[in-house]
Amino acid sequence: MSAHDQTTAPELKSWVERANAPDCEFPIQNLPYGIFSTEHSAARVGVAIGDSILDLTVLAEEGLIACPLTVVTQVRLNDFIALGPIVWRKVREQISALLSASNHTLQGNAALREKALIQQAAATMHLPVEIQGYTDFYSSREHATNVGMLFRDPKNALLPNWSEIPIGYNGRASSVIVSGTPVRRPNGQIKLPDQDRPVFSPCRKLDLELETGFIVGIPNALGEPIPIEEAEKHIFGMVLLNDWSARDFQAWEYVPLGPFNAKTFATTISPWIVTMDALEPFRTLQPTQVPLPLAYLQHTGEHAFDIHLEATLKPETAAEATTITQTNFKYMYWTMAQQLTHHTVSGCNTRVGDLMGSGTISGPTPGSLGSLLEMTFNGREPIKLQSGETRSFIEDGDELTLRGWCQGEGYRVGFGLCTGQVLPAHPMK
Amino acid sequence: MSAHDQTTAPELKSWVERANAPDCEFPIQNLPYGIFSTEHSAARVGVAIGDSILDLTVLAEEGLIACPLTVVTQVRLNDFIALGPIVWRKVREQISALLSASNHTLQGNAALREKALIQQAAATMHLPVEIQGYTDFYSSREHATNVGMLFRDPKNALLPNWSEIPIGYNGRASSVIVSGTPVRRPNGQIKLPDQDRPVFSPCRKLDLELETGFIVGIPNALGEPIPIEEAEKHIFGMVLLNDWSARDFQAWEYVPLGPFNAKTFATTISPWIVTMDALEPFRTLQPTQVPLPLAYLQHTGEHAFDIHLEATLKPETAAEATTITQTNFKYMYWTMAQQLTHHTVSGCNTRVGDLMGSGTISGPTPGSLGSLLEMTFNGREPIKLQSGETRSFIEDGDELTLRGWCQGEGYRVGFGLCTGQVLPAHPMK
Repeated sequence: MSAHDQTTAPELKSWVERANAPDCEFPIQNLPYGIFSTEHSAARVGVAIGDSILDLTVLAEEGLIACPLTVVTQVRLNDFIALGPIVWRKVREQISALLSASNHTLQGNAALREKALIQQAAATMHLPVEIQGYTDFYSSREHATNVGMLFRDPKNALLPNWSEIPIGYNGRASSVIVSGTPVRRPNGQIKLPDQDRPVFSPCRKLDLELETGFIVGIPNALGEPIPIEEAEKHIFGMVLLNDWSARDFQAWEYVPLGPFNAKTFATTISPWIVTMDALEPFRTLQPTQVPLPLAYLQHTGEHAFDIHLEATLKPETAAEATTITQTNFKYMYWTMAQQLTHHTVSGCNTRVGDLMGSGTISGPTPGSLGSLLEMTFNGREPIKLQSGETRSFIEDGDELTLRGWCQGEGYRVGFGLCTGQVLPAHPMK
Repeated sequence: MSAHDQTTAPELKSWVERANAPDCEFPIQNLPYGIFSTEHSAARVGVAIGDSILDLTVLAEEGLIACPLTVVTQVRLNDFIALGPIVWRKVREQISALLSASNHTLQGNAALREKALIQQAAATMHLPVEIQGYTDFYSSREHATNVGMLFRDPKNALLPNWSEIPIGYNGRASSVIVSGTPVRRPNGQIKLPDQDRPVFSPCRKLDLELETGFIVGIPNALGEPIPIEEAEKHIFGMVLLNDWSARDFQAWEYVPLGPFNAKTFATTISPWIVTMDALEPFRTLQPTQVPLPLAYLQHTGEHAFDIHLEATLKPETAAEATTITQTNFKYMYWTMAQQLTHHTVSGCNTRVGDLMGSGTISGPTPGSLGSLLEMTFNGREPIKLQSGETRSFIEDGDELTLRGWCQGEGYRVGFGLCTGQVLPAHPMK
């Protein structure tokens, strides 16, 4: 279907009433995949609809989806994703049909319906994919410029390679965690300006990085690059991603091999993978690239997506959270297609479930910065919260939450929450 | 057993005659683990002895080792390693007994012996572990100094953080390959000094990095650092590692997030994991560390290992390989224990089978440099090969081979080969 068809089709309704509310993030147009468990059932594949989860194990048992039972009973989505795009689309069509207001297969079978629909409030969400490779890019021009001004030369904030290469680095896959998992403040080395040697200390500049990530759906073999025109087909879907960062560790450790302990302690992703099929209606034009990238990175047409993004911070004792930034995925300078093509142009292979982070997404205006580092000018100008408190960086007990959605006409395709509360550091010996 | 017992125990002989030759890398003192297959059998766990492989599936079927059959029939060693150090040691003792000259269980049973012993020449070796996380350190003071002189300020070659932090970065686990796999020259961006913009080209400065790697045997949970005094217990064993590097890509891409496409196209490891138990007799003192590291990195006693290392280069048309460097693992400034403790001090978790590279191991003398970058001063002074040819960097068809062994009295504990031939780059579109 074309973008036009979808964005002007608010008449597509589900018999799951809550899914039809204009502010519901999981309408029938979305249908994201995740892994859930309940008090009564082990972790398995589900699809979010309204405030419920559709249990694909029940559908597969009934022969209602073109997908083996052994795949949807897995504790990660990798086996499902590995079935390939023909299955992704067939199952999406089947689920969409089963949930549509005019279909009575589930709607009209109370026993089956109750078995297949689980309240989200009664479920625990798990990491949706086994991540064998996690790469994080650095593709927001505004973020790279802001960081360059703070840490390097303000006059030459954007490094020369930045406008030629979708700069990225290998992240630590083992510590990617699902939304809701607490994050312990890390200990590490900090070099204070007035001392000759570093101190070992709990991080004093703990930060968020507001990002999205995409999940590789079709792998490529070692030595076989993915051409730019094929790249988007390799992507299964997207998540929200908080690349928690210890700014003080980072400043001391990052030359010459890049960030390490500053980032390896935790990376939080949202539990629902929103498919590229659900995002297709929100395709839009990426920023103009000057200079025109080298040939292997050139693509024509629209390769950005209009995804509203925001982050909130809630101190442990505060009554409510404060929205600290509002930005949009469409500001990204380098597209996901360019990231994936650059990643593999050397012959590097990818695997199903690999996670590729966008890098911090900062927009062009002051209210659209994706990190506290930028918002507070490295802590020099604290932000004010609704409770009256201020923040230079994240404090113990603070809960950071990312949200993201695409706005259609009368409906939203949302990502759900990507949240984590910060716990005090382990006592040091 | 103590170091003294082992190094002065050349009388420990096997009935596998070849294992008793003084230059054999796989004597009864070694017993490294690997994954092999033959024309007649699927990939499974084996132990190298002499020029043979002991098939652990046969031993488990016969009830001769304290290890479930389902573990030794796996195509990777992770499940075996996950059984933990008590099993590692028990199985090692049992295999050592079965192979010793005085034992007749296998030796005296021709049918069983022939079933259990496979000629290495008739076997194909596979990647020994599923690697979910690959980290590469940068722990040779000589290498870091040499690189700093070439790429940064010769007067301040060693960066201030280097002597405080076992600097490391996340590598790409998906492209870790087993010895013998060809390596395709990567394409990528090169910034030539006389041009404003980069060119897209096959790598022109393809290099080796002579390293070792260790394999994590006991994982740690997220948020639970491994204290320095516990760190060595978490290591299962070691391999040789060639961290193939595209120096021209690296110089252009590495600021500020570190090497990426310069390294992600291939990392070769040797197929046999030499256990820490086999290496124990070769423990020696690490270099003196000045300044004394921060408390969390301090350990007393011997934490280096005396492992002779060398690399050869053989042009495709040459009759023989040229030894281009001879160095030793004991030159490493930061120990494996310090690397692992630093890696986890932030709370970062590790998993069974994680690979941690040492970083290029350069020694203090000109003949002991671990990369062509250093040997040729970034290509300015080519080295001469035995065939009369010269090399600034690796050319197509060249075969690079790493070797490593510990020298006991009358025996060697060796790693076997870590080799790869370089194929021409893919034609660019």
